[in-house]
Amino acid sequence: MAKIGFIKLGNLGMSQVIDLVQDEIAAREGISIRSFGTGPKMGKDEAAATEELKKFDADFYVMISPNSSAPGPTAAREIYKDVPCIVISDGPTKKDDRAALEEAGFGYIIMTVDPLIGAKREFLDPVEMASFNADAMKVLSTCGVVRLLQEELDKVAAMVDEGKELELPHILAKPEKCIARAGFNNPYAKAKGLAALHMADMVAKINFPACFMMKEIEQVTLTTAAGHEMMRAAAQLAIEAREIEKANDSVFRQPHSKSGNLLSKTALYAKPE
Amino acid sequence: MAKIGFIKLGNLGMSQVIDLVQDEIAAREGISIRSFGTGPKMGKDEAAATEELKKFDADFYVMISPNSSAPGPTAAREIYKDVPCIVISDGPTKKDDRAALEEAGFGYIIMTVDPLIGAKREFLDPVEMASFNADAMKVLSTCGVVRLLQEELDKVAAMVDEGKELELPHILAKPEKCIARAGFNNPYAKAKGLAALHMADMVAKINFPACFMMKEIEQVTLTTAAGHEMMRAAAQLAIEAREIEKANDSVFRQPHSKSGNLLSKTALYAKPE
Amino acid sequence: MAKIGFIKLGNLGMSQVIDLVQDEIAAREGISIRSFGTGPKMGKDEAAATEELKKFDADFYVMISPNSSAPGPTAAREIYKDVPCIVISDGPTKKDDRAALEEAGFGYIIMTVDPLIGAKREFLDPVEMASFNADAMKVLSTCGVVRLLQEELDKVAAMVDEGKELELPHILAKPEKCIARAGFNNPYAKAKGLAALHMADMVAKINFPACFMMKEIEQVTLTTAAGHEMMRAAAQLAIEAREIEKANDSVFRQPHSKSGNLLSKTALYAKPE
Amino acid sequence: MAKIGFIKLGNLGMSQVIDLVQDEIAAREGISIRSFGTGPKMGKDEAAATEELKKFDADFYVMISPNSSAPGPTAAREIYKDVPCIVISDGPTKKDDRAALEEAGFGYIIMTVDPLIGAKREFLDPVEMASFNADAMKVLSTCGVVRLLQEELDKVAAMVDEGKELELPHILAKPEKCIARAGFNNPYAKAKGLAALHMADMVAKINFPACFMMKEIEQVTLTTAAGHEMMRAAAQLAIEAREIEKANDSVFRQPHSKSGNLLSKTALYAKPE
Amino acid sequence: MAKIGFIKLGNLGMSQVIDLVQDEIAAREGISIRSFGTGPKMGKDEAAATEELKKFDADFYVMISPNSSAPGPTAAREIYKDVPCIVISDGPTKKDDRAALEEAGFGYIIMTVDPLIGAKREFLDPVEMASFNADAMKVLSTCGVVRLLQEELDKVAAMVDEGKELELPHILAKPEKCIARAGFNNPYAKAKGLAALHMADMVAKINFPACFMMKEIEQVTLTTAAGHEMMRAAAQLAIEAREIEKANDSVFRQPHSKSGNLLSKTALYAKPE
Amino acid sequence: MAKIGFIKLGNLGMSQVIDLVQDEIAAREGISIRSFGTGPKMGKDEAAATEELKKFDADFYVMISPNSSAPGPTAAREIYKDVPCIVISDGPTKKDDRAALEEAGFGYIIMTVDPLIGAKREFLDPVEMASFNADAMKVLSTCGVVRLLQEELDKVAAMVDEGKELELPHILAKPEKCIARAGFNNPYAKAKGLAALHMADMVAKINFPACFMMKEIEQVTLTTAAGHEMMRAAAQLAIEAREIEKANDSVFRQPHSKSGNLLSKTALYAKPE
Repeated sequence: MAKIGFIKLGNLGMSQVIDLVQDEIAAREGISIRSFGTGPKMGKDEAAATEELKKFDADFYVMISPNSSAPGPTAAREIYKDVPCIVISDGPTKKDDRAALEEAGFGYIIMTVDPLIGAKREFLDPVEMASFNADAMKVLSTCGVVRLLQEELDKVAAMVDEGKELELPHILAKPEKCIARAGFNNPYAKAKGLAALHMADMVAKINFPACFMMKEIEQVTLTTAAGHEMMRAAAQLAIEAREIEKANDSVFRQPHSKSGNLLSKTALYAKPE
Repeated sequence: MAKIGFIKLGNLGMSQVIDLVQDEIAAREGISIRSFGTGPKMGKDEAAATEELKKFDADFYVMISPNSSAPGPTAAREIYKDVPCIVISDGPTKKDDRAALEEAGFGYIIMTVDPLIGAKREFLDPVEMASFNADAMKVLSTCGVVRLLQEELDKVAAMVDEGKELELPHILAKPEKCIARAGFNNPYAKAKGLAALHMADMVAKINFPACFMMKEIEQVTLTTAAGHEMMRAAAQLAIEAREIEKANDSVFRQPHSKSGNLLSKTALYAKPE
Repeated sequence: MAKIGFIKLGNLGMSQVIDLVQDEIAAREGISIRSFGTGPKMGKDEAAATEELKKFDADFYVMISPNSSAPGPTAAREIYKDVPCIVISDGPTKKDDRAALEEAGFGYIIMTVDPLIGAKREFLDPVEMASFNADAMKVLSTCGVVRLLQEELDKVAAMVDEGKELELPHILAKPEKCIARAGFNNPYAKAKGLAALHMADMVAKINFPACFMMKEIEQVTLTTAAGHEMMRAAAQLAIEAREIEKANDSVFRQPHSKSGNLLSKTALYAKPE
Repeated sequence: MAKIGFIKLGNLGMSQVIDLVQDEIAAREGISIRSFGTGPKMGKDEAAATEELKKFDADFYVMISPNSSAPGPTAAREIYKDVPCIVISDGPTKKDDRAALEEAGFGYIIMTVDPLIGAKREFLDPVEMASFNADAMKVLSTCGVVRLLQEELDKVAAMVDEGKELELPHILAKPEKCIARAGFNNPYAKAKGLAALHMADMVAKINFPACFMMKEIEQVTLTTAAGHEMMRAAAQLAIEAREIEKANDSVFRQPHSKSGNLLSKTALYAKPE
Repeated sequence: MAKIGFIKLGNLGMSQVIDLVQDEIAAREGISIRSFGTGPKMGKDEAAATEELKKFDADFYVMISPNSSAPGPTAAREIYKDVPCIVISDGPTKKDDRAALEEAGFGYIIMTVDPLIGAKREFLDPVEMASFNADAMKVLSTCGVVRLLQEELDKVAAMVDEGKELELPHILAKPEKCIARAGFNNPYAKAKGLAALHMADMVAKINFPACFMMKEIEQVTLTTAAGHEMMRAAAQLAIEAREIEKANDSVFRQPHSKSGNLLSKTALYAKPE
Repeated sequence: MAKIGFIKLGNLGMSQVIDLVQDEIAAREGISIRSFGTGPKMGKDEAAATEELKKFDADFYVMISPNSSAPGPTAAREIYKDVPCIVISDGPTKKDDRAALEEAGFGYIIMTVDPLIGAKREFLDPVEMASFNADAMKVLSTCGVVRLLQEELDKVAAMVDEGKELELPHILAKPEKCIARAGFNNPYAKAKGLAALHMADMVAKINFPACFMMKEIEQVTLTTAAGHEMMRAAAQLAIEAREIEKANDSVFRQPHSKSGNLLSKTALYAKPE
C-alpha cells in the first residue's frame, strides 16, 4: 500500500490531473491518495498551510507549483525537506538550481513545457483561465508529459511497495524528453507533437514580459492574446497528432491493472496486457 | 475575508479548476482558499478523510464529486451537514433527490453537462483521461458553466464579506441555464455553445452503459470511443463559438478586481471596469 | 423483374435518395421504379392522393414519411394494407406501436437517426431546409443508414425475383444497428460515425420542443439553430470518419452489378466483384 | 390555389428538394403539390410512365432530369407540350437548343452548376452516390440555386393565383447568376460561394470523360474520385461562406408566410416580415 | 559541370523556386546556376535586358514568364534562339503554337496549372500578390509540378555532364500529367491532388475576364476574389493530400546527392538511397 | 525613374517575391527592376558573380541572402560598398554586428521571422523545399513582413524620384515590428498573426541544431519535420487571421497607383484611393 500526498500551491497546467494519473479509473488497489491545495495563491501563508498534509504520513509527497524558486514554494519545501518529496514545476531550469534541489534531497521534474498563463487582469478572467488550461492539458496529455509524470510517480510507488529505499526522479522535461514518452507510432504525428511542445515552451517567453514588464493595455492584451493563440495552435497540433494515430489504429495506451501494474495495448479492440 | 474550503472526492471535469475561478490571477485580496482532495477514489475511507478540512473553519465549503448520491459523497455530507456547504456534482438530477439535499441544508449546483468519462480499463489510460478532461473543460469554460460556478460562489463569498446569513444556491445546471451565463454576443455562437452543452450532456448517456453494463471488449471500446469522440466534437464546437466572438471582438470578460469585485469588458483593448 | 413503388408523404432526410439506392448508376436491369410524392404536406388529402400509385401494381411498396403514426400516413396505410408495403419513418419507436404495424402486415424500418428539422417559420426558409437536409444526408449516407435501407430493399427485391413469398423487414434502426452496416474498417472512424448517429438522433430531442411547444421568438430561433448546429457537427464527424477510411484506402463499396447483384470492393483501384 | 406537378426523370442534385422549396415548413395554404418520379432511370419507358401525372391537371408542371436533350426527357416533353411546363436540367447549355425549348413553349432553368456524378460501377455505390448528393445540395442550397428555383416557381404560382397568363422562366443558371440570388452580405462570403459554384460547374468537365470515355479502372476511379473531391471541396467552401454570414448574424432568410408570401429577415432573433 | 541560366520575365508561381529545385540544400557539386530577372514587367525593354545573361555562356537556358506568346517573351526568345533554351510558361496551350516553339528549336514546358493572378489594382496589392503565390506554390510543390520541372531540368543537366547532344523537353503539363509525377501512394491523396490541379487550372478561366475585360469595380473585385478563393481551396486540398501521405508515413522524397544523382526515400526515418 | 537592382544569394523565404512587391500588377511607371541571382549557393564564386549587376547602374541595390555574415554575402558586399545598398537577411541579429553594417554604409532589414529551412538531405527534397517556402510566404505576406519590405523600398525609391540623398533603412524586423505593419483591424487577428510570427521566428531555433549539429538520421528527420510542422502551423494561423479580416470585410490593401503612389482601401468593393 503506497500512500501519496499531493501538495498544490498555485496552479500549473499539470496540477489539474496530477493526482489522478496513477489511478485513472479509480479502481487501483494498494494506493491511497490525498491532496491539499491552496487555490491560486502560493505565498507564505499558503506555504505554512501545507503543513496540514504532513499528518497524512505519506510514503512520499509530490509538491506542484509554478516557479518552485519563488518564496512560497521555497518555504513549503522547508516543511517537507525531511520526507521524500518530488518537486514538480516549470522552474528552475538552470543546472545549478536544480542541483541544489537534488542536494537538498528533493526529487524534481521541471517541465518547461507547462505554459505560463497570461495572468493579467486586463486579459484573463475565469473563463479564459479555464479555457487556456484546457489547451495546455491537450498538449500535456497527448504529447508525453502526462505519461512521463505517471511513469515516474509509478516507479516511486513501486519502490514503496517493494520496501526499497526511494530513489526520486531528477528530470528536466524539455520537449525532446517529453515526446519520447508519448508513444507515437507515426513519425509525423511525433513531429507534430514535438512542435506542439516547443510551442508550449515558447508561450512563457511571450507571456513573461506581458505578466511582469508591460503596462500599456493594448500591448498587454495583444501580447497575452498572442500567447494564448500560440497555446491554442499547439493544442490543435496535438489533436492532429493523435488523430493520425487513431487513423492508423495505433494509439498506444497504458492503463493500470487492478493491482497497479502498467498494462499496454495498441489496437482499439485489443485487450490490455 | 472569506475563507472557502473545497472538498474534492473523485473527479469531475469541473474539479480541475473549481478552486481557481474566484481568483484567476492570484491577486484577489480578502479571500482564502484551501482544498482537500482524495484523488480518483470516493469511497468510505475517502469520505472519512475529508474531515481534515473541517479544521480550516471555512466560512463555507464546496464539495465536488461525481454522483453525489453515491455512498462516499453521502458519507462526506454527514461530516459537513452542520456547516454551510454547497454540493457540486453531475447528479442527482431528480427533483425529489435535489429537494432532499436542500432540506438537509445543502446548497447544490447539479451540472448535467459535466460529462461522464469512459472509465473502462480497456479504453481509458492516464493520457486518454487527461485528454478527455481537456475537451470537457473546453466546453465547461467557454459555454457558461465555469462562469455560472464562479458567479454563484462569488455571491456566497460576498454574503460572507457583508456579514449576511448565507443563502446557498440550488441550481440544476442544464444546457439552457448554462448557456445563458456564457455571455455570447453573436446568436449563432450561442447556438453552437448550446449544441456543445447538449452534446456534453449526452456523453453520459453513451458512456453509462459502457461503464456499468457492457462486458464485451469490442462493444466497450467502440462505445467509450464514441463517447469521447462526441466530447471532442463538442469541444470543437465550443472553440468555433469562441472564435466567432473573437472575430467580432466581442468576447465578454469578467475579471476580478483586487478587492474581489467583478469587473467586465468586451473589446480586447478595453479596460475592465 | 421487380417493380417497386415509392410513396413519399412529407419529407425525411432519407426521402431524398430512397428511390435511387438500388440502382445508383441507372444501369440495373430487371428493376422498375416509380415514385409518387405529395411534396411537404402529409395530411388527409395527400394520403388519399397516394392511391394513384396503386395502379402501378408494384411487387412491393415503400411508404416513407415523418412520424408514421400521424393521421396522414395512417390513412395512406389503409390504402396499401392489402399489398406488400414497407413503412420507412422516424417513428413510432415504441415497441407496442411497432408490433401493431407488423401485425397489420406492414414491414417497417424506423430510423430514429433521421433528424427532425427545425420547422419554424422564424428560422426555416427553403435554403436552410435544403442545407439541413444536406447535413442529414451526409450522416445517413456515410454512417450506414443508406446501406441498411438499400440492403433491406434489395433483399425483398430478390425475393420477388426468386418468386418467394415476401418477408418484409422489421427494424428499429438505432445508432448501433446503423453503424454495423456502415462497413468501416478503422475502429475510430466507426466510433466517429457512431457518435454522429447519436447526435443525429438527439437533434429531434432539441428541435421537438422548438417545433411544438415554444412560442417566444428568441427561444425558438436559438433552439432550432442549436439543433441545426448539432446536425452540422454530426455531418462534420461523418466526413472525418470517411476521410480516415480514404486515408487508409479502405472505403468499403457495394455497387450493383448490371443484373442487380451486390458487388463489393475496398481498394480504390480494385475491381468490384 | 395553385396545383403544381413535379416530374422527376433520373436524378439531379436539385431533384432531392425541388418539390419542397415552396412550402418548407409544410404550412402554406393555397398550394397543392404532387410529384411523380421514375427512380434513377430516364429511358423511353420511364418517359411514357410520366403521363400518369397529367391526370393531376396541375396549373403547371416542372420536369426535372439530367440532360434534357436525352431521348427520355425529350419523349416526356412530348407528353407535356400542351400544358405549361418548366424544364429543369443541367443541359442543354447551347443558345440554339435553349431557344428551341422556348419556342416549343417550355420554360426552362438550365443549371450548369448541378454537378454530374461519377456514375461508374467501379466507383459509385449507393453510399457514395448519396454522399455526393449531400455535397451537391450543400452548394446548391447555400450559393443561391435553391433560392433561384424557389423564387421562379413562386412567381409562376403567383400568376396562377392571380389568374394571369403564365409566363414561364427562361434562365441559364451559371455561377454568376446563381450567386446573385444567394443573398450574401459579406463580399468574401459571396466570393467563396461563387468559387464553389464554379467548382460545381467544373465537376462535370472532370466526370464526363470518366463516365463516357475512359475504360481503364485506375483512370476511371482516380478521375471520378477527383471529381467527387472537387465537389467535397466546393461544399466545404459553401459551408465556410455561410459560417461567415452566421458570424456576422447576417444570414438572409426568406420563409413563406401561411398565405404563401415571401417574408424576409436577417438577424437570427428578428421576426420574418 | 553544368552551367544553367534562368531568365525570369514577369512572374509565374513557379518563378519563385525554379532556380532552386535542382540543388535544394545548396550542396550539389558540378552545377552552377545564375538567374537574371526583370521584376514584374516583361515588355520590350525587359526582353532586351535579358541579353545580359548570355555572357554567362550557360550550357542551357531556362526562360520563364507568363504567356510566352506575348511580345516581351517573344522578343527575348530572339536573343536566345541560337542556344539551348527551354521555355517555361502557362501558354501557349494550342498545339500549333507549341509546335512552332519546338520547330524554332526551343524546349518547352507549358503549365496550364500555374494560375493566373487577379492582377487588378482594385484587388491586388503586394500582400495579396504574395499570399496568392504562396497558395499557388503549395499546389505546384505538392501535386507534382515542381517535381516535373526538376526531373526535366535534371535530365538536361545530365546530358550536359555526359557530353550528349541536348534533347530539350516538350511537355504540355496538364493536371493528369503533373499528378503522375507527384509520387502519391494513397489513391485518394492523388485524387485530391488532381482536383487541386484542376482547380488551379480553372483559376485562369475566372481571373482572365476580370483582368482583361471587366471594368465595374464590384464585378472586378468579386471575380478576382473568387479566383483567389478557388486557389486557396486548391492549396487546402493539396495540404490535405500531403497530410494523408504523412499519416501513412509514405511521403515520397527525391533529394539530390552531393554529386547530383536523384536519391529517393519514403519512410521518414529511412536513409535516402 | 528609379532603377533598382536586386541581388539574390542563396534563398530566403522573402527572396521569392522581393523584386515584385513594388509593382504587383506590373503597371507602375517610373520604376525599372533588374535582379541577379546565384541559385541556392552563396559561396565566393557566387559572390564574385554578382558584380554583373553593377553595370545596371541602379539608383540603389537590394542584396538578399540568408545569414549576411557568411563569407559569400560578406564578399558580395565588398563589391557593392560604394553604392547605395540595402542588406536583407535573417541575420546578424546582434546589435554590434548590425551597427557595423550601418557604419559600412549599408542599409539593412534583418528579418528574424524569415524561417531557416530544414536543409538536410535526409529530409529536404525539392518538393519539401518549395512547400516549406509556400508556408513561409503565407506568414511573411499576411503578417506584415511583405508590407514592411515594400514600404521601406518604396520610401527609398521615392527619395530617388525626389532627387534626395538616400537614407537607407536600419531595421531589426522582430515579430512585434512586423505585426505593426500588417494592418489588421481585428485585435484577435492581429494576435494570431503575432503568434504566427513568433512561431516562424522559433523555426530557426529548432532547425539550426538539425542543420548544423545532429548526425543521427532519426533525430535529424524528426527535428526538421518538427520545424516544418511548426511552420505549417504558423501558416495556418496566418490564414485564420486573414479569414477573420475577410469575414469583417476589413482587409487592408495598399496597391500602387500607376505613378507609384501607395493607394489604400479596406472594403472589398471600395475604390483604392
